Amino acid sequence: MAQRIRVTVWNENRHEKTNEKVREVYPEGIHAAIGQGLGTDAFEVRYATLDDDEEHGLSEQVLSETDVLFWWGHMAHGDVKDEIVERVHGRVLRGMGLIVLHSGHFSKIFKRLMGTSCDLKWREADEKERIWVVAPNHPIAEGIGEYIDIEAEEMYGEHFDIPAPDELIMVSWFEGGEVFRSGCTFHRGQGKIFYFRPGHETYPTYYNEQVRRVLGNAAKWAAPSTREYPKYGNHKPLEAIKPKS
Amino acid sequence: MAQRIRVTVWNENRHEKTNEKVREVYPEGIHAAIGQGLGTDAFEVRYATLDDDEEHGLSEQVLSETDVLFWWGHMAHGDVKDEIVERVHGRVLRGMGLIVLHSGHFSKIFKRLMGTSCDLKWREADEKERIWVVAPNHPIAEGIGEYIDIEAEEMYGEHFDIPAPDELIMVSWFEGGEVFRSGCTFHRGQGKIFYFRPGHETYPTYYNEQVRRVLGNAAKWAAPSTREYPKYGNHKPLEAIKPKS
Amino acid sequence: MAQRIRVTVWNENRHEKTNEKVREVYPEGIHAAIGQGLGTDAFEVRYATLDDDEEHGLSEQVLSETDVLFWWGHMAHGDVKDEIVERVHGRVLRGMGLIVLHSGHFSKIFKRLMGTSCDLKWREADEKERIWVVAPNHPIAEGIGEYIDIEAEEMYGEHFDIPAPDELIMVSWFEGGEVFRSGCTFHRGQGKIFYFRPGHETYPTYYNEQVRRVLGNAAKWAAPSTREYPKYGNHKPLEAIKPKS
Amino acid sequence: MAQRIRVTVWNENRHEKTNEKVREVYPEGIHAAIGQGLGTDAFEVRYATLDDDEEHGLSEQVLSETDVLFWWGHMAHGDVKDEIVERVHGRVLRGMGLIVLHSGHFSKIFKRLMGTSCDLKWREADEKERIWVVAPNHPIAEGIGEYIDIEAEEMYGEHFDIPAPDELIMVSWFEGGEVFRSGCTFHRGQGKIFYFRPGHETYPTYYNEQVRRVLGNAAKWAAPSTREYPKYGNHKPLEAIKPKS
Repeated sequence: MAQRIRVTVWNENRHEKTNEKVREVYPEGIHAAIGQGLGTDAFEVRYATLDDDEEHGLSEQVLSETDVLFWWGHMAHGDVKDEIVERVHGRVLRGMGLIVLHSGHFSKIFKRLMGTSCDLKWREADEKERIWVVAPNHPIAEGIGEYIDIEAEEMYGEHFDIPAPDELIMVSWFEGGEVFRSGCTFHRGQGKIFYFRPGHETYPTYYNEQVRRVLGNAAKWAAPSTREYPKYGNHKPLEAIKPKS
Repeated sequence: MAQRIRVTVWNENRHEKTNEKVREVYPEGIHAAIGQGLGTDAFEVRYATLDDDEEHGLSEQVLSETDVLFWWGHMAHGDVKDEIVERVHGRVLRGMGLIVLHSGHFSKIFKRLMGTSCDLKWREADEKERIWVVAPNHPIAEGIGEYIDIEAEEMYGEHFDIPAPDELIMVSWFEGGEVFRSGCTFHRGQGKIFYFRPGHETYPTYYNEQVRRVLGNAAKWAAPSTREYPKYGNHKPLEAIKPKS
Repeated sequence: MAQRIRVTVWNENRHEKTNEKVREVYPEGIHAAIGQGLGTDAFEVRYATLDDDEEHGLSEQVLSETDVLFWWGHMAHGDVKDEIVERVHGRVLRGMGLIVLHSGHFSKIFKRLMGTSCDLKWREADEKERIWVVAPNHPIAEGIGEYIDIEAEEMYGEHFDIPAPDELIMVSWFEGGEVFRSGCTFHRGQGKIFYFRPGHETYPTYYNEQVRRVLGNAAKWAAPSTREYPKYGNHKPLEAIKPKS
Repeated sequence: MAQRIRVTVWNENRHEKTNEKVREVYPEGIHAAIGQGLGTDAFEVRYATLDDDEEHGLSEQVLSETDVLFWWGHMAHGDVKDEIVERVHGRVLRGMGLIVLHSGHFSKIFKRLMGTSCDLKWREADEKERIWVVAPNHPIAEGIGEYIDIEAEEMYGEHFDIPAPDELIMVSWFEGGEVFRSGCTFHRGQGKIFYFRPGHETYPTYYNEQVRRVLGNAAKWAAPSTREYPKYGNHKPLEAIKPKS
């Protein structure tokens, strides 16, 4: 039997504590809905949240046992310690997969990996989103069909200030007239990163079966394919070098 | 007449002060050799160095009058103030071109923009480098011919820990047996970035006519094509949104 | 003074002969509207149409004097001779720019260069199109603003069966609920190719000032940056090769 | 148990019939060495060669039962019937993986899919090749280490006239002074394509364990992730369209 992929779902988990509406939609927290959606056949899921402990639940040990990290954050990006961001960053460069969700576009770790502002247009107006697959042969799109219809979501619109994605998998259409690059892959160091747009805290998006399928596909895609790390630094010649006059 | 492109050549300028050999090769500093190579037909060149003043010669005003910034640094990356790095970063995102040279791969600004370690293999062994053009129709390769032969240079070898470049223009062959992605373009925000490998401080690389042609081509390519900046943040709908039940 | 770019606008020019409505919108033909939109400051424009002569107006001489070729075709792709397609293909590989418009997605030359079916979804329903710029720092997007609103156009929807574009410049939003990668660049051989979606024959799209600006920007971007052609075939060693045992 | 991937190894198999030296290296044909290298744990391998029958062993049925097709050809590209090339092309667009090897760069099917001349520099001089991994986190590079040393091979040198690969996995260093983009992925339609450089008929390259590992990794990567095919053609609106005045 193939080994299960070790996933850690990290959630800021603050809206859930202060906002009745969010608690109604996600009574156990957004992280639980994400983790339950992954299921246990292919994944071994654990959770971590901002207020777990001094390390936001992301100790060296937790990260060393994580193949793929999910990241949901929104109102408290600034409360994530720089030291923990650097730790996660280092792990991504050494091969850990990272799935950044929705408002995570403004998280320290995503901005750190992208090198850009990661800014965008947004609007909360209870509007329809239709996420079109533009790379239907990509493993992240497997089994999704041509598009995902979401009855109501927050809008994110272009320009989205990211580097051109290595692969553009999905593009959103919004009722109010905008488009957005909603499913994007990036490679940084040995790590694979997937940004996936939907998932505002007041909508039941993470119960949507197609959204859950995308998250599972993405975790499989982002799992490390190797545990080797390139050698850097001073390097002896592999061929004879002629003395120059 | 077309307006000239305003270039600022920034150089760490420390090797030149302490190393006799470097001073022999670049008596006026590496920056002067780069700037003189650009010529004055298409460019208006100014210089800035690490020890110029409190701001390393990169005041808000200097940067606001700069279309393209060249960056050469090596032994004193850590002495560049974070505040100045953020200033340069902000300018790149708003459209300033950036040409990062040789050991600048480890500069704070390049790592900030790439989001990776930017690490690589290296060796000083007086060896031959041959830089092959793999994207001959790119404006940066205009007039270069099939390759640039450099009699002796420092070696940089793969793996080079950068994001996959938006365009790969050149690949180096080294006498000692390595290869390297030597000419790479990246887009970050509104800014265009070109990384160009050669230029170790003890070799007269920046007097090479083909190298100088690459630098001039790159500065033209990286010059901002627009001064508009996208609008981010809350955004009113452009189409009517139906009330959801 | 910079030399003007030599543009040839090729148009099938069949709808104009048979369809009263098209003739009303484009009394001198679609090609004339495109060429007049380019203006004469930067461009030297000539025209060629399917029924001009045995070679569809694209003789060896015309092509050898063309820096950038525009291509509009729709109802008669099959009438374009394979021999002429191969001629145009050869010229693109040697550096001629090519701007493929709207229904030209199904032209022989575009399919030949892409290697895919170039198929898509479509609908004629008098609907609004909004073309969003997703790469605002690209020279093709210069001066366009954030989006182009087109009151009514034919719809093209994803999946668009093309190779992933080298650069994705624009994405369309359609009133009926679809999205489309509307502005795409490709490099083939020494040639630069731009596909631009809008321009159905019954709508006055090629009189739109922003559309015209895109066409002019694209022609400047696609103009050859070099007239050199790489050397292929048997190649003598540049370094000594040790005899193997 | 996961289902095995159905591989068909296609070989021109002409050198083997006429050249004693090739027969010595590959007594059962190049195809057998490739297929045996894949093993039977993950793959179900069958073979097809140019002279098998009227269809070069590639009947509709064989292709419909093939997940991934390997292609080795050299001296008889012209003998492959256009009808069979179109059949293979159609299957790739519908999802079949394709691994093109060495001199297959000039095969009709590869040129058909690339849209370029696929030309390059070459030399037979018994020289060393070192294939460097430049994308170490890609599944095709899994378990390969930093580079593959090949004692003697034919040289292929840049410029290689292909579209910029979707992912550049490997770059070769040659003893005689050239470099080459040796491991390249492309997506065309629903199909995944991998071009891998080494494998001249007079060298025992396909017995090299690292080369075999690359071929197995590539076949796993190229296997279809979906059997769905996008819908093209006329498309009803998904949202109401307002009548225009």
